[in-house]
Amino acid sequence: MIEYEYDVVVIGAGHAGTEAAAAAARLGAKTALLTTNLDTVGQMSCNPAIGGVAKGQIVREVDALGGLMGRAIDATGIQFRLLNRRKGPAMHSPRAQADKKAYQQFIKHEIELQPDLDLRQETVEDLLTETTPDGEKLVGVQVRGDAVYRAPTVVLTTGTFLSAVMHTGDAKTAGGRAGEGTTTGISGALQRLGFAIDRFKTGTPARLNRRTIDYRSLEEQPGDDQPQPFSFLNDTIDIQQVPCHIAMTNPAVHDLIRANLHRAPMYSGQINSRGPRYCPSIEDKVVRFADKDSHQLFLEPEGHHTEEIYVNGISTSLPRDVQDAMFRQIEGLQNAQIMRYGYAVEYDYCPPTQLWPHLESKTVPGLFLAGQINGTTGYEEAAGQGLIAGLNAARIVAGKSTWVPTRDQAYIGVLVDDLVTSGTDEPYRMFTSRAEFRLLLRQDNADRRLTADADQLGLIEATRRDAFQQKLKDIAKAMELLSASKVSTAKGDVKGDVYLRRPEVDWEVMCSIVPELGAIGAQAAQQVVFDIKYEGYVSRQRDEVARQQRMLKKKIPQTFDYATITAMRGEAREKLSSIRPVTLDQAQRISGITPADIALLLAYLEAPSK
Amino acid sequence: MIEYEYDVVVIGAGHAGTEAAAAAARLGAKTALLTTNLDTVGQMSCNPAIGGVAKGQIVREVDALGGLMGRAIDATGIQFRLLNRRKGPAMHSPRAQADKKAYQQFIKHEIELQPDLDLRQETVEDLLTETTPDGEKLVGVQVRGDAVYRAPTVVLTTGTFLSAVMHTGDAKTAGGRAGEGTTTGISGALQRLGFAIDRFKTGTPARLNRRTIDYRSLEEQPGDDQPQPFSFLNDTIDIQQVPCHIAMTNPAVHDLIRANLHRAPMYSGQINSRGPRYCPSIEDKVVRFADKDSHQLFLEPEGHHTEEIYVNGISTSLPRDVQDAMFRQIEGLQNAQIMRYGYAVEYDYCPPTQLWPHLESKTVPGLFLAGQINGTTGYEEAAGQGLIAGLNAARIVAGKSTWVPTRDQAYIGVLVDDLVTSGTDEPYRMFTSRAEFRLLLRQDNADRRLTADADQLGLIEATRRDAFQQKLKDIAKAMELLSASKVSTAKGDVKGDVYLRRPEVDWEVMCSIVPELGAIGAQAAQQVVFDIKYEGYVSRQRDEVARQQRMLKKKIPQTFDYATITAMRGEAREKLSSIRPVTLDQAQRISGITPADIALLLAYLEAPSK
Ligand SMILES: Cc1cc2nc3c(=O)[nH]c(=O)nc-3n(C[C@H](O)[C@H](O)[C@H](O)COP(=O)(O)OP(=O)(O)OC[C@H]3O[C@@H](n4cnc5c(N)ncnc54)[C@H](O)[C@@H]3O)c2cc1C
Ligand SMILES: Cc1cc2nc3c(=O)[nH]c(=O)nc-3n(C[C@H](O)[C@H](O)[C@H](O)COP(=O)(O)OP(=O)(O)OC[C@H]3O[C@@H](n4cnc5c(N)ncnc54)[C@H](O)[C@@H]3O)c2cc1C
Repeated sequence: MIEYEYDVVVIGAGHAGTEAAAAAARLGAKTALLTTNLDTVGQMSCNPAIGGVAKGQIVREVDALGGLMGRAIDATGIQFRLLNRRKGPAMHSPRAQADKKAYQQFIKHEIELQPDLDLRQETVEDLLTETTPDGEKLVGVQVRGDAVYRAPTVVLTTGTFLSAVMHTGDAKTAGGRAGEGTTTGISGALQRLGFAIDRFKTGTPARLNRRTIDYRSLEEQPGDDQPQPFSFLNDTIDIQQVPCHIAMTNPAVHDLIRANLHRAPMYSGQINSRGPRYCPSIEDKVVRFADKDSHQLFLEPEGHHTEEIYVNGISTSLPRDVQDAMFRQIEGLQNAQIMRYGYAVEYDYCPPTQLWPHLESKTVPGLFLAGQINGTTGYEEAAGQGLIAGLNAARIVAGKSTWVPTRDQAYIGVLVDDLVTSGTDEPYRMFTSRAEFRLLLRQDNADRRLTADADQLGLIEATRRDAFQQKLKDIAKAMELLSASKVSTAKGDVKGDVYLRRPEVDWEVMCSIVPELGAIGAQAAQQVVFDIKYEGYVSRQRDEVARQQRMLKKKIPQTFDYATITAMRGEAREKLSSIRPVTLDQAQRISGITPADIALLLAYLEAPSK
Repeated sequence: MIEYEYDVVVIGAGHAGTEAAAAAARLGAKTALLTTNLDTVGQMSCNPAIGGVAKGQIVREVDALGGLMGRAIDATGIQFRLLNRRKGPAMHSPRAQADKKAYQQFIKHEIELQPDLDLRQETVEDLLTETTPDGEKLVGVQVRGDAVYRAPTVVLTTGTFLSAVMHTGDAKTAGGRAGEGTTTGISGALQRLGFAIDRFKTGTPARLNRRTIDYRSLEEQPGDDQPQPFSFLNDTIDIQQVPCHIAMTNPAVHDLIRANLHRAPMYSGQINSRGPRYCPSIEDKVVRFADKDSHQLFLEPEGHHTEEIYVNGISTSLPRDVQDAMFRQIEGLQNAQIMRYGYAVEYDYCPPTQLWPHLESKTVPGLFLAGQINGTTGYEEAAGQGLIAGLNAARIVAGKSTWVPTRDQAYIGVLVDDLVTSGTDEPYRMFTSRAEFRLLLRQDNADRRLTADADQLGLIEATRRDAFQQKLKDIAKAMELLSASKVSTAKGDVKGDVYLRRPEVDWEVMCSIVPELGAIGAQAAQQVVFDIKYEGYVSRQRDEVARQQRMLKKKIPQTFDYATITAMRGEAREKLSSIRPVTLDQAQRISGITPADIALLLAYLEAPSK
């Protein structure tokens, strides 16, 4: 038996684990990242894309906090699109398709290059705890091959791999991703430690060989002319871009699916667990939207150096003969050759109400959980949680207080708060509608929301700090130039910043009027335009935030005994005791907690202690 | 249950399987390549290098036959070296290190692009046979998920994955390659079909993180200034080249190993099977070369986009604490961080005397075996066999006769002939010494030995045919120019071709004398120089070949009944009956068969049949 000593041990090098480990190491914690197979570090299990509505905002936040995801997709993206471009800037959501293998290599390489971080191929088989007067405390992990990693903090990010079962029709295989294995030891350990465990499912579509697709009848979908980078460190994208194509399902395909529904594991009763509502399988779509007789399928290339095509929109666990038959009936795909069949995977997750907002277990100190294991879905949600967990694991080791962004500061704040407060009874994905302060949480201003904090926390390097400070200077300078300038209009002279508020006036127009603005960086210029044009909305939202914060930022001591509030409804007392919110704000968002309960709680908190 | 119909099904997309499938499809056979995980197609399990002494010649032959390996390494090689450059051209052996991931992607992409070839992610669980009056005949394979691929020919190339067990110290894990699984169904099928099965082992060293190596004290080893391509289709190598470095073991390391020998699975008795003699583990080296107090370790980068360093020369299955401790004692590696530990793997193989020279089973027609499953080691040996098996599977389906290169035509001929004739009681690797006609089997002339046949067989495309024919024309033209030219020397005029024989005269000298030679292509020029300078040796070897061929090319009917040669020694009769050589030539190389046995057999063959 050999033992290694670390400050932070991260289990699993998916999207959560890589961000967790990199964040902890950036803070100077001696960190080990242990993963079953070094060749799958940062692997995209499913669709070859990063970002999307609300998810793109998370990626920008991860980047603003010094994370990997933004730079990785910038270096390897083969089609960039800013979604919702016609809507206001709060809805602008960057999305890009990745060269899947290149993306994975980029992430792995960054991890390899990170000082204080040891990436090691290890299979973790057990979590080790010690009994203290206050209960079990985490002390390390046991890996296959008779070795132990000791650490005061462990971040568990095993994704879909816990007691995982894959389904294609009635065929079942143990494993969290086709061609790979499963992990049972850790599920057992979590059970032993008293964690509630539940099951979710997710699915993936077939991959086709491009050579066998007839593109002549398919609509082309190109990316943006001027791809916009995800990372605040990048100004341009230099990789060759490729188009996607759109195919369509039809009534014949839907009939086929209906006729075979009894053979789909989700309808036959073979799978009972819930899947992601907003990534439905094709069988779900046919049932739920019975009146639609066509669904779009996006044919997305998996990279520059492969013919594999990901068929976005036709995720399924129907048996292979049905999958074969479906494509035979779709225009352009009649002769398409399936390289990998679609399948569904069922896996264990831990309802996240068992965690503090900084993603540490409430019952087993030192154990952090992040990513799909917390009941979320999506690479971005995983990355955001990973960063928070790794950061806080390192801070705890260093004897510092925890840090979590607030709901009005970041989608990541909304994400962890939603998870630990309300839990989730279906795979959780981010939406703009989940963020009550979404006008503040724009993709364009993620750095202004987070980078100063990130700097304080030690998450970022000099390059990023300098670029950010330059940008702030540019913004201030531009504001100064604008408010000092005069534009003569039909109704007399107005200041530049007032003039810029007009819908038809853009930055180019202002530059022609105030030539010194030409020296302002592009990122800063965009901020100035948005700030000025949307000032009204934003300042109203800011006032609302301030008011709420004053009232709700009240902390609830962790030792607070809800049993003492005898006047409170039993249900509310129970919920509050089990979730143990850290602030009044968090308490009020627990489902079933009424404003009356909050008023009562506030009264008790403000009462002089007996 | 769903069924697919193919002409040729190849199981396993390693080095043997990819060449087999590509060759069969080039011949127009409808081919399926089934492999457990599409992300490991063409993966190098161990060292990131292609070629080497005798192996480099095989790669050139695979290329001359239209195979993938040569073009793949040319596209992805990061350090090229022509070994034995100071020796005669028969010893020149190309070797190159690969960007491992790029190599794998290249192979996978070529497979995806190959018409008539379907690459599919499938795990084969059983071999299906039908009983005919002559015994079992292969009819297809069963894959996981209730589907069957029917085909009259199946090529089995599962490498180290059959009933595989990995060892690091006394820790054992089922699996053929770290992080992956094993395959038991097929071993069972082979047993059921009456195949003899035996076990071999092989090993791999640890991988280190480059960032943690102190290079200041290590000797640099650069590649060749002018990298020479493997493929006859390429004239230059355009990828950035990198150096390797050399570290050294020392007496302290050797003492440590000796003190822990009882913990090495091969010495503790935990592994009994034999490993590759010429790729010994470090524990073997310390034992077998007890008087040496230092061994070289080559630090080979695994690619341009990774920090992983392969430590060539320290393959081991010692427990991890010993591996950790060994590196602590090696100059430059004291702080090196192990990313993956070394391990040994034990696996099933089928003694290859059970096969015909074209690699089809003697007892189960339609079943071909190629690669590591035949008891060989090495990517190149696997690729060569794969090509032969795939080619012949396709030919048999097309009702054509089998084709195998002869021993004086190719190392691949030596390889398959050695395997089916003598079998092997340790993992078989190629050496120049195994080829009695090695002066003919040079790396430079592989195309002249094979490409015309490859063209006849339908293995190559127009580009290769045209380039080859142009080269032949160039050679003829150069020969004509040389013999028509006169060079005046101290001893009077001599013809150009005679003058070129002189050791101090090279091609540049001749070009200055006969300027028209400047128009001759570089590959052709090199051939002309070698042909002229080594004419003596080569023609003697050719005469010898001709003499032997006359005597030994005599065919032995497959139905020949050795029991009728009553005068023959019992042992010889038994051996011949079990191996059933197809020619007298093959018969004479069976171990234990004497010239007297051959004379007797010849007499019986030439006797008028009774
Ligand atoms: C089939 C499938 C379909 C999906 N479809 C979608 C989709 O359509 N849309 C979407 O947004 N998301 C989808 N997802 C989810 C997405 O893949 C995840 O959200 C994301 O990968 C989660 O990241 P993670 O870091 O939590 O886990 P993962 O990326 O799964 O990483 C887990 C890591 O842990 C490692 N590991 C596991 N066990 C051990 C152990 N015992 N010891 C050491 N290491 C271990 C694994 O090797 C892996 O590296 C899908 C996932 C799957 C599998
Ligand atoms: C640990 C290790 C160390 C080695 N060290 C050396 C060395 O130092 N020098 C050297 O020259 N050679 C070495 N080798 C050998 C070298 O890797 C092999 O010679 C070469 O890879 C053999 O090629 P192959 O095509 O026969 O098999 P592989 O490359 O092993 O390919 C086998 C393929 O079959 C697939 N497969 C397995 N089972 C199934 C199934 N049931 N259904 C579908 N697909 C399946 C696998 O996924 C894989 O793709 C080593 C191998 C290993 C594993």
